[in-house]
Amino acid sequence: MDAHLYAKTNQQRSLEELIALLRIPSISTLPVHQADIRAAAEWLAAHLSSMGLESRLYETAGHPIVYAQWLGAPSAPTVLIYGHYDVQPPDPIQEWHTPPFEPTLRDGRLYARGASDDKGQLFAHIKAVEALLRTEGRLPVNVKFIIEGEEETGSPNLAPFIRAHQDLLAADVVLVSDTHSRSLEQPSIVYALRGMAYMELEVWGPKRDLHSGTYGGAVHNPAQALCELIARLHDDNGTVTVPGFYDRVRPLDEEERAALNQAPYTEAALKAETGVQAAWGEAEYRIHERIGARPTLEVNGLVSGWTGEGAKTVLPAKALAKISCRLVADQDPQEIYQLVRDYIARITPPTVSTEVRLLHYGLPAITDRHSPAVQAAVAAYEEGWGAQPIFTREGGSIPIVAEFQSSLKAPVVLMGFGLPDDALHAPNEKLTLECFWRGIATSISFLTRASALPVRG
Amino acid sequence: MDAHLYAKTNQQRSLEELIALLRIPSISTLPVHQADIRAAAEWLAAHLSSMGLESRLYETAGHPIVYAQWLGAPSAPTVLIYGHYDVQPPDPIQEWHTPPFEPTLRDGRLYARGASDDKGQLFAHIKAVEALLRTEGRLPVNVKFIIEGEEETGSPNLAPFIRAHQDLLAADVVLVSDTHSRSLEQPSIVYALRGMAYMELEVWGPKRDLHSGTYGGAVHNPAQALCELIARLHDDNGTVTVPGFYDRVRPLDEEERAALNQAPYTEAALKAETGVQAAWGEAEYRIHERIGARPTLEVNGLVSGWTGEGAKTVLPAKALAKISCRLVADQDPQEIYQLVRDYIARITPPTVSTEVRLLHYGLPAITDRHSPAVQAAVAAYEEGWGAQPIFTREGGSIPIVAEFQSSLKAPVVLMGFGLPDDALHAPNEKLTLECFWRGIATSISFLTRASALPVRG
Repeated sequence: MDAHLYAKTNQQRSLEELIALLRIPSISTLPVHQADIRAAAEWLAAHLSSMGLESRLYETAGHPIVYAQWLGAPSAPTVLIYGHYDVQPPDPIQEWHTPPFEPTLRDGRLYARGASDDKGQLFAHIKAVEALLRTEGRLPVNVKFIIEGEEETGSPNLAPFIRAHQDLLAADVVLVSDTHSRSLEQPSIVYALRGMAYMELEVWGPKRDLHSGTYGGAVHNPAQALCELIARLHDDNGTVTVPGFYDRVRPLDEEERAALNQAPYTEAALKAETGVQAAWGEAEYRIHERIGARPTLEVNGLVSGWTGEGAKTVLPAKALAKISCRLVADQDPQEIYQLVRDYIARITPPTVSTEVRLLHYGLPAITDRHSPAVQAAVAAYEEGWGAQPIFTREGGSIPIVAEFQSSLKAPVVLMGFGLPDDALHAPNEKLTLECFWRGIATSISFLTRASALPVRG
Repeated sequence: MDAHLYAKTNQQRSLEELIALLRIPSISTLPVHQADIRAAAEWLAAHLSSMGLESRLYETAGHPIVYAQWLGAPSAPTVLIYGHYDVQPPDPIQEWHTPPFEPTLRDGRLYARGASDDKGQLFAHIKAVEALLRTEGRLPVNVKFIIEGEEETGSPNLAPFIRAHQDLLAADVVLVSDTHSRSLEQPSIVYALRGMAYMELEVWGPKRDLHSGTYGGAVHNPAQALCELIARLHDDNGTVTVPGFYDRVRPLDEEERAALNQAPYTEAALKAETGVQAAWGEAEYRIHERIGARPTLEVNGLVSGWTGEGAKTVLPAKALAKISCRLVADQDPQEIYQLVRDYIARITPPTVSTEVRLLHYGLPAITDRHSPAVQAAVAAYEEGWGAQPIFTREGGSIPIVAEFQSSLKAPVVLMGFGLPDDALHAPNEKLTLECFWRGIATSISFLTRASALPVRG
């Protein structure tokens, strides 16, 4: 039996194992889930050990890192596979059709928080390694897994860990599956990822909440002032108004624009996927360019005053917004934070006070489409997925990709096993099972072909 | 012993009784406090019975109304005393120095939710009636109490009750204490109250929360769109931009402006009370005019997306604002709601959807400063409080005042026993005990003087 056949025959067991992992509510942003985070890490380490890899946890200042290795092919290249076992909070919880941590199968789709981002995609590689080991007794390449528990909080401890463990992690190619393909029929390889600067903007005025009757009309309402500031961060074209914001953006050249436009992301697709009535944003850029090649400034949250049912006639003392900028090469997140902070300070009226705080950040990344590693991935998709992949720029952020590139000096290959409607970070996240099966097959093909990659000296 | 001396000798017991009433968390906006609401109503009915009044609860579609009467002076005038036993929610609860429903005495001030608004002010009248009954064996006038449990939710059931019980409630003067004086040394009688139109503005776009990386830049963020809409509701002068908003505002004439300016509310006082760095609002109006004689549009709450600690990179599906307009004579709340709704509809961009819902409303009111009832109150303040009151316009709303005027055809006298820094609707609400004692004395004097008022045929 070859590895592909083994994977097919063991689909039911693989699914049950994934479901067990998805049952663990390993939400990294909520301190109350500390024990669940550790349970997920220990589950993975034990699972990788049971497959025949050496595995262990590395403690960090935050959540533990799962590391595992199989180094039985000394002269062959080494593939480092990255994933994350932490998940986003499930809020708004009441909008889930079935509970987020009780994985449920409906119409060939597995619904659960983390099903696609990233437990499901990671698990496809784990099952590919298992299939090769069980059928061949060995792997065609050396394989290392590094699986973190803090991706959803900006990977604060992974970059220092990589820098401190460059020998342990040394590899000829880094494989990351935390993106999505255009569709089941049209797989894609992402070659650019956006970076991130995540901030909090706080506005305050009175020293306490006021009665809106007693003072309304003579005090600048901080909730209103927050809205007035946020409204000044974009112009009518959807362009960010922060001075200097676009200064370091690497322009698209005509060749790259043309290549991206071979498989354009249409307004019709955007409307079908999201339910919006119309697209929005910079008119001089096509939709996939706005998402992949242009930076954004997004309001991720607003809170002020009375937010419950019914009425409370309060003039709130303060108002808070969560604001994140998605960044493209060659923007610098800390410089962007400073530009936003300085602009907000400059446009703050004398009637209120403001502060902008940087919560976390990550660098944007671009990888070389023409490297042998990426070309091996193209061939693996053709064989394992059954279709030739296109190259795309991804709007999301995997800040650690830039760190792998700079610390390990290895090419990073982004194989996306998700789909655009997976509802990442939203209610009713799902993984299409057919993507899971094809992901396993594509990973088997990639690991097999990776044996021909050049080995670094 | 006369009534004033009786009240003084019984201060400690009166305070303990008030504390018992304040311990009941009778929050009318939160359904979970249904039993507490009833407990507060029953406590008051029992207390009034024990003083010698006939009392009972009237059930309504919402919370019960407490009614009590002493009608032992057939040829004397009748005073109807209004108050409310419900309170605002205590949020943000973590900002209270002591728990909101564990009344705490510090530096001559009693800290508790409802201490000033309105349990404390109401209780001053109850203790005045008790002092007169205990010392004279009778009252100088007939007295009726009507105490509702829905003031903080816009009194939805009180107006129909008044209309249906005009004989029961018939009176020669209505006495309301739910306002505040300028200071302990400078009592005031309010002759104008603002009305209210309380609305919810909802903005939505995508059918679910989106990943801000996958779609950010091509989808109009509903939280941003909400801010952009709210920012367009005022101009740079602080004037509301909704077309027609000011059309029915009764202008201040020069005589009234001059009278109000005899005791102006200064920017220094505003800053000291609220902690704001500067006043805000319509430059062509003085601060007390902005609060008392001009309508407002206030953001009472904002909520969208991720509002917890840390970061969540969500592009929210929807955003909600609580918005209330304080209205002055002769504005109509339902017309104002329609104007706001129509304006929002007109400025909503094609990239999102919006809805404006009216949650509750109340009419503005103006009373005649020259009526015998109001002049009796002036004399009562001079005797009971020890200072001559000024006349002021109040920015807050007691919508039922307009209903008393129109249904009972009786003058309404507003005696404010609170102070500006009582923190109504905010953390650390308090009642200054000296106000409570002077309030009891002023009420005793008023009830005594009210016996000389004309009796309606």
